[in-house]
Amino acid sequence: MARCDALGVAPYSDMEGGLFRAYLTPAYAAAQGRLAEWMRAAGMSVRVDPAANLIGRYEGMNGDAPALLIGSHLDSVKDGGRYDGPLGIMLGVEAVDTLHRVGKRMPFPIEVIAFGDEEGSRFPAAMLTSRAVAGVLKAEALEVVDGEGVTLEDALSLHCHASGGWHLCSPTMHEEKEMPAFAGVTQFLEARRAAPLAYLEAHIEQGPVLEAESLAVGTVTGIAAQLRYQAVVTGQANHAGTTTMPLRRDALAGAAEMLLAIERIAKDDASDLVATVGRIEALPGAPNVIPGAARFTIDIRSGDPGRRDGVARHMLAALDGIAIARGLMLSVELVHDLPASPCAPALMDIMDAALANAGQPPFRLVSGAGHDAMVMAALCPTAMLFIRCKDGVSHNPAEHVDPADAEIALQVMLGFIDRLGDSFAAD
Amino acid sequence: MARCDALGVAPYSDMEGGLFRAYLTPAYAAAQGRLAEWMRAAGMSVRVDPAANLIGRYEGMNGDAPALLIGSHLDSVKDGGRYDGPLGIMLGVEAVDTLHRVGKRMPFPIEVIAFGDEEGSRFPAAMLTSRAVAGVLKAEALEVVDGEGVTLEDALSLHCHASGGWHLCSPTMHEEKEMPAFAGVTQFLEARRAAPLAYLEAHIEQGPVLEAESLAVGTVTGIAAQLRYQAVVTGQANHAGTTTMPLRRDALAGAAEMLLAIERIAKDDASDLVATVGRIEALPGAPNVIPGAARFTIDIRSGDPGRRDGVARHMLAALDGIAIARGLMLSVELVHDLPASPCAPALMDIMDAALANAGQPPFRLVSGAGHDAMVMAALCPTAMLFIRCKDGVSHNPAEHVDPADAEIALQVMLGFIDRLGDSFAAD
Repeated sequence: MARCDALGVAPYSDMEGGLFRAYLTPAYAAAQGRLAEWMRAAGMSVRVDPAANLIGRYEGMNGDAPALLIGSHLDSVKDGGRYDGPLGIMLGVEAVDTLHRVGKRMPFPIEVIAFGDEEGSRFPAAMLTSRAVAGVLKAEALEVVDGEGVTLEDALSLHCHASGGWHLCSPTMHEEKEMPAFAGVTQFLEARRAAPLAYLEAHIEQGPVLEAESLAVGTVTGIAAQLRYQAVVTGQANHAGTTTMPLRRDALAGAAEMLLAIERIAKDDASDLVATVGRIEALPGAPNVIPGAARFTIDIRSGDPGRRDGVARHMLAALDGIAIARGLMLSVELVHDLPASPCAPALMDIMDAALANAGQPPFRLVSGAGHDAMVMAALCPTAMLFIRCKDGVSHNPAEHVDPADAEIALQVMLGFIDRLGDSFAAD
Repeated sequence: MARCDALGVAPYSDMEGGLFRAYLTPAYAAAQGRLAEWMRAAGMSVRVDPAANLIGRYEGMNGDAPALLIGSHLDSVKDGGRYDGPLGIMLGVEAVDTLHRVGKRMPFPIEVIAFGDEEGSRFPAAMLTSRAVAGVLKAEALEVVDGEGVTLEDALSLHCHASGGWHLCSPTMHEEKEMPAFAGVTQFLEARRAAPLAYLEAHIEQGPVLEAESLAVGTVTGIAAQLRYQAVVTGQANHAGTTTMPLRRDALAGAAEMLLAIERIAKDDASDLVATVGRIEALPGAPNVIPGAARFTIDIRSGDPGRRDGVARHMLAALDGIAIARGLMLSVELVHDLPASPCAPALMDIMDAALANAGQPPFRLVSGAGHDAMVMAALCPTAMLFIRCKDGVSHNPAEHVDPADAEIALQVMLGFIDRLGDSFAAD
């Protein structure tokens, strides 16, 4: 917790009076340098991979065994919280530090990885770095430019070679593998690695479920499957003063009825399914004009893709009915269809056992938010541990975690590592 | 109709391929010049008042009697229709022309006035010119600047003295009263006049009521009283993926329920009352964030201010109830409270009789939109005649009036003038 707090201010933040640490910025480089010190103090050797992720390695009994990867992301959103990302990294460092202090080696190496870009707060893309590591990034995805016109290639080159960037960490951070000369943005794809033993990520919940259940931590069952739609309702724009109520075809009133139907159907499902309308616009958007059109987004998520799709069909049918009854046109475009990314069942069982051993009632919940673990699932079995955060708030300076909960999370992670060692030995 | 169409293109429009004629522009000056010719051809003397309104005067039997003023506005919105405003002026010119051809004089003079600024499409103000004539304009209101940084004073000065403006109409248009040298923007207020006998305005309905009733024209009872509110609903912003349905305080879902309540209460009132939510915004407005706040406008109008206020109270109470039930905060700010502007009952009776005489079933309707007549009511008794327009559409190139309806309107106006003469004689 103290280390997350330490990284919450300059030079580890590029924002006055708050935290903003975007990928490949001076704050990012400074945070890598500080984190590298902590990793070394915990008995790890430190390197930077070709996607500028920082990796600390703690050797196991067998150096050739695939590593247990423990990680999360070092970047933040603008004016974000201190624990979203870094807490998962620090828990990995603390877990290794605990093993290191007692001289314990596991049957496998442990690598703590600090991903560089999860939030997508600099380039118009997200999870660039875990996608590179998992080998699911295409070269076209590297053709991105930040809000100030800097390409990913230039940002990476600057971070590698120029002042204020890379060399803050070097030379010691390249202990294992000296970084070759910068070879263009395609080097990024070389961050792809062979399948590790597993990927473990601890992360704040960013939701209110654990708090509502009075639980410190919970086993994540996976990342929810997500559908995103853009809906457009079309009616007839008219003068708000001259068009009597029965003669109106008000697109926004129709949209309002649709919003309530979406909410009602999601509530009635009484599962982990959530549906959200986060953006709405009435056109032309003047107080004295009956809206001729209304646009809104629909976001539907569930850990169960079949349930998600069934509810989505039900909702769209309800929306069609409302449009017909009101003499409106409705067009709905599917914007995203992200599959569910389930955590490995065997690792969930290990996590449950680790919870029980730490005196915590086993509790499972789905993650409605995306995480690097979602991407890493393409590479290896994944496990996630959620940590309660106050009021479910994140992406906000008010983000808060109880230190006692972080301590429980550490004990659970140590238990998880221990049990993974047992299962590894049993194989 | 043909004259309105003639004014729909260059040089009477400052827009390629459409109509845009804003106050004191070259198109406005050109239209004044053309209109002055038509006024003179109809037997009128022509002058420009200090607010640059064009006025044609047809003498009555008694030159000292207060005049019947017939008018509407010459300006348009951007890419507007050809009849919103000019049709009322042309009907005045046609009515006078009819009298002139048969050599008929009324007991009162008739003045046809073409107001310069009704739409407010140049300066951030509306009905500047009728407000000046009615004497309800304050000097501060003249301190306006258009979108290109031109002050009303400069625009007026240019129109009076410089090329392309004033002199297009002069010298003949100053037949009655030579315009003095431009004396600054405060000359505008000198457009204030002594109370005329009455003000009569014919205007397209800009709404669908007459069309729905299969009527060409209708007697306007007045301009509706209007309330405008700005509502802000506050809940709790949260991650759309991680916050289960029962734990949400979604400001936009609450706003949607409020919109439907507003619509239902207005419909249930089953009167001329209308209520509109024309603008809405969810904050922060991201598809993956549960709205923590929603802002929307409420516009409520009725010809009956008491009914308007009662319904508004009922709506606000319903909105409060929704907010409480959902654990949301609601704040509602009153933005406008415009009183009703009823037409003179005696003149409505005369208009009804003129309708009947023209073979039209008497029909009365309120105007939900504002008109110069609303302003002129502060100066003298007013009467308005609404003319059916296709699909209720205005402020749009698709604005359309059936020439047969315009002909009926002319007959009704002649009947009105005739009956007003009878009642004048009877006094």
